[in-house]
Amino acid sequence: MSNNKSIDRTEIRLAGEGGQGMILAGIILGEAAAIYDSKNATQTQSYGPEARGGASRAEVVISNGEIDHPEVINADALVALSQEACDKYAGNVRRDGWIIVDDEKVGRVLASHVKIVRFPIMRMAVEATGKAITTNVVALGVLVGLTNAVSREAIEKAVVKRAPKGTEEMNMKALAAGFEAAQDYIGRG
Amino acid sequence: MSNNKSIDRTEIRLAGEGGQGMILAGIILGEAAAIYDSKNATQTQSYGPEARGGASRAEVVISNGEIDHPEVINADALVALSQEACDKYAGNVRRDGWIIVDDEKVGRVLASHVKIVRFPIMRMAVEATGKAITTNVVALGVLVGLTNAVSREAIEKAVVKRAPKGTEEMNMKALAAGFEAAQDYIGRG
Repeated sequence: MSNNKSIDRTEIRLAGEGGQGMILAGIILGEAAAIYDSKNATQTQSYGPEARGGASRAEVVISNGEIDHPEVINADALVALSQEACDKYAGNVRRDGWIIVDDEKVGRVLASHVKIVRFPIMRMAVEATGKAITTNVVALGVLVGLTNAVSREAIEKAVVKRAPKGTEEMNMKALAAGFEAAQDYIGRG
Repeated sequence: MSNNKSIDRTEIRLAGEGGQGMILAGIILGEAAAIYDSKNATQTQSYGPEARGGASRAEVVISNGEIDHPEVINADALVALSQEACDKYAGNVRRDGWIIVDDEKVGRVLASHVKIVRFPIMRMAVEATGKAITTNVVALGVLVGLTNAVSREAIEKAVVKRAPKGTEEMNMKALAAGFEAAQDYIGRG
């Protein structure tokens, strides 16, 4: 993923409600970058008063170089699975960055000069695997398919590594569904 | 947990090998502080080249106030479940801080002016629950029992929240085993 900053630094924010698996998604993405793409990465959760309200947020910074500041400054991409998360973080996405939302959860996106991508992410998860719990993995497929923040091979390995035993295949289906949607979107130009 | 810094800030580092659950332990501790103790917390993984070697590290910073810097500067407590992790991080623990090691994994602790606590943490997990996978939860019990980094009620709730369905009771046993060992240690004075 290219950006306009002087060093190679990609900043991703994943936000939603507690239980949507955004923190695990952040860990998987960080591990994909560091372990399988051999980059440096940091992965952070900052819990403030919003944690008590059930909001959940993970941040991942990926770089070829040293990472001085482990938190997102200006996101290259935001995945928002709730209206509250989208309202809170849409304004922090950089110009020409990506905002990816579950359009059955998020109606309005208050941002301009960004690429807004709307998919029924949770529904796609249920259709692909029968399990809403794979929503976070579908979201990772969409994110990586659109942004190339990490390689497809890396995210596949990282998902399998963190998948509970016996659920590897289901999680691969969820990831593939996300990639497929991303490719359709890119194909639509 | 009190420390000598001007603001109330507690820094915990959890380190071991991949698969020992240190990252999940960090998430549980961060959620205990933020959601159940109503403090601010950050929880970070920084992956560098060491991630490729199977090392795993989580950092948690807990404060009553704003957290400017989300990473550990000088740890109040280190939990080290491998010799490599202990060698790497023991020197970064503050004076009078805690180093908690699994003494069947860690032989030497290269640090002075710190409190060094040695328990067979993985063996305690197997004895308490029959499952080595609960090692990270036993470690949390020891850590919280010794340091009071979060309240016992908070860590119990956070462990249950993150426990896979059906394993809540097993994880409570693991946590209790850790607390019991901590209390024995304190009792020995």
